[in-house]
Order: sequence, then structure tokens, then C-alpha cells
Amino acid sequence: MSKLRLTISMSLDGYVAGPDQSVENPLGVGGTRLHEWAFELESWRAPHGLDGGEVNESSAVVEEGLANVGATIMGRNMFGGHPGGWDADAPWNGWWGDDPPFHHAVFVLTHHAREPLVCEGGTTFTFVTDGIVSALEQARQAAGGKDVSLAGGAQACQEYLAAGLVDEMVINLAPTLLGGGERLFEGLGDDLHGLEPRRSVAAPAVTHLFFSRP
Amino acid sequence: MSKLRLTISMSLDGYVAGPDQSVENPLGVGGTRLHEWAFELESWRAPHGLDGGEVNESSAVVEEGLANVGATIMGRNMFGGHPGGWDADAPWNGWWGDDPPFHHAVFVLTHHAREPLVCEGGTTFTFVTDGIVSALEQARQAAGGKDVSLAGGAQACQEYLAAGLVDEMVINLAPTLLGGGERLFEGLGDDLHGLEPRRSVAAPAVTHLFFSRP
Repeated sequence: MSKLRLTISMSLDGYVAGPDQSVENPLGVGGTRLHEWAFELESWRAPHGLDGGEVNESSAVVEEGLANVGATIMGRNMFGGHPGGWDADAPWNGWWGDDPPFHHAVFVLTHHAREPLVCEGGTTFTFVTDGIVSALEQARQAAGGKDVSLAGGAQACQEYLAAGLVDEMVINLAPTLLGGGERLFEGLGDDLHGLEPRRSVAAPAVTHLFFSRP
Repeated sequence: MSKLRLTISMSLDGYVAGPDQSVENPLGVGGTRLHEWAFELESWRAPHGLDGGEVNESSAVVEEGLANVGATIMGRNMFGGHPGGWDADAPWNGWWGDDPPFHHAVFVLTHHAREPLVCEGGTTFTFVTDGIVSALEQARQAAGGKDVSLAGGAQACQEYLAAGLVDEMVINLAPTLLGGGERLFEGLGDDLHGLEPRRSVAAPAVTHLFFSRP
């Protein structure tokens, strides 16, 4: 069974992006602090084409997170650029340049229809306008038996969590405050919608919290 | 040097008490879920006069948290009862009965003056109306060289954190959502006011996050 797996970095005060997100500052003010724990890891650097790096308790977590993923879903805000309809002359094509690091089918939740965007290296962005269930069905189909990664942002995560569609969740808890921005668990009430805590892994600069469906 | 040590349990969505706190529900709706990890531990049960219990990765954390504490500070909301002035005929005397589990001097931050409350077992509640610095000075004096514990609630923690007066912080992160209530890091902006992350300890039902001043 192909699982929907949410892996996301969150601050101690619950934010997955800082305040004032913009084209210049896609993660919001201070948002890169959520991901600093990963930048020095060999298991993060290698797939991003960078040499060297550390091996520590986070390494296996990152490797497991990248393994067996056949498609990705993300919200329009994570794909980025600007709200509203696409610019017909110079549409926003994502943050990742000509060769995005996904190398598989990516489904972007949006209210604005658009033709698929085919990039180098096997990444194709498909724009889904008929909701999260449709995006998940399309992603499962594209994944060919592998799992589907839910990459963010906060609103997309909230919609899938509230619908009880997330099978596994890994929160990389960064020991820092952002003081504002997008909260992961906003509007979800007081339960994890079927997810149960499994274990946590203490690493030097982050703590990994694992949840899954029984 | 006598340290000010904050130890507190927090939900995944950042709450240290649930919504609708009351005399019947001092931790707010769902708030006991923050502390369930502790109730089964031998190191928590023994000082509360209960037999048996488990020994796991949390045991040493609880023992360290109770060791070398000579006085406690808490906010009026944690001492509880009702907001505003004290009832002259039947003043609220705390949640803990005749023999509170502190067994040392406790300083309660309040706007309403009151004579000290002397209980069995060595616990005396002193009501401090001239602010957090005065309470800390009085607590350090009473602790006789030992450390001072900052017990909560959220507002008292925020005031000491914002003033840069907390020397050590241990967050017991419970893998649960409360969906409302009192947030620990409300209004503190985007920095930890001098505290730096040190390590985390993964236990079966909670994750302990350690911070201290350099």
C-alpha cells in the first residue's frame, strides 16, 4: 500500500515558516533556521550535489525520508511566486531552477488551472484544481506503488491531516523560536486525526518525532 | 551560583495548559495529557507517596529536575482558585491539600497582598506583590544556595524568559495536541532570550528538550 508521508521541520513555537514570506524570503523571516540541522549532513548534501558533510543520528532519518518516494504533493504557497492566477507571459516556475531536486511527478494544489510544467531530471509539476483527494489519487498513480511525500506548506498539511489522509508524519523539531509565521497545527483541534506517536530520535541539532496510523 | 530552572510540559502545538481552566479543571481541557508520561514513573510516584512504577529514559530527567531545588516560584494562575483579590473569609489555599509536595518555600506572584500560608511538611506559600525580580531574590535567599524552580504557569514563565532570568529550561514535549489554552512561547518574539539548545532525550512517551545559558 502506497503511504502518504508528511515530513516537515517545525520550530519550538510551532511554525513551519517564518513571518513575511516573499519571493526574496520563501521560508519567511528566520525560516532557514528550521533547516540548518540538515545542511551539514552528508545524507542531505549528496542528493543536492554537494560534497562532504557529517554523519550523525539524523542521517538515517533523512535517508529513510528520501527512500521509496515516487511522487510529491505540495501547496501553491510552497510552489511559490505570487497568489492568484498565473502570469500568462512569464509564469512562476518554482524556486528550484531548471533541475528541481524531486526527480519525479510533483502535484501542486491550486485554484488556478495551468498546463503541466516539465523540467530537467524527471521532475514534472502538475497543477491540480479539484482538491486534495484528487491530487492524492493522481500522485499515487504516478508513484507506481511507491509512497507519496507531502512536502508542505502549512495549509496543505492541515487539509490532509484534517481529512485523516496522512499515514506517517515526521516532525523535525528545531530548538528555535520564529515568533510568527505559519503554524503547522493551526485549526486542527485537539487530536492528531488518527496518527499516534511512535518514537523520537535525539540528534545534535534537531529532534525527530515520528507518528503513524495504527 | 543558585540557578533559576524552568521545567514544564508542553504539547506539540505549544500549550502548557488546555482551554477553559477552572477549579474543576486546573490544567484546562485535555491538560492532564501533558503529564501522563510522568504518572507511571517510579521517580515521579515515590515523591508523591505512591508505590511502584516504571524506570525508563525519563527517570533520570525527573530525578535531576527534583534534585538541588531549595525554593519554587509560581504565578497566581498556577496557585489557582480565582482571579482578583483573596476571599477574606475562605481564601483559596492552593490545589495541593494540607501537605503540598514542595516541602520548601514557594513564592506566588500576585497583585493582591496576603499573609504567608504555612502548610504541613515544610511548604510555606509567600505572596509576592512587587514583581518577578523581587520574587527571585526572595526565593534565592530561601533556597540557601540551592537552585530555584520556576513551576509555571505560562505567563510567569514568559515574564522570566523575556527578562533573561531563566538559567536552565527543560521542556517535556508531549506528542499530543490541545488545540487551545495557554501557549508557553506567546509574546516572546523569535529568540530564546539567552538560552541555547543543549541536548534532547528520547523517552517512550515524551521527549525532553534541554536549554541553558552559555
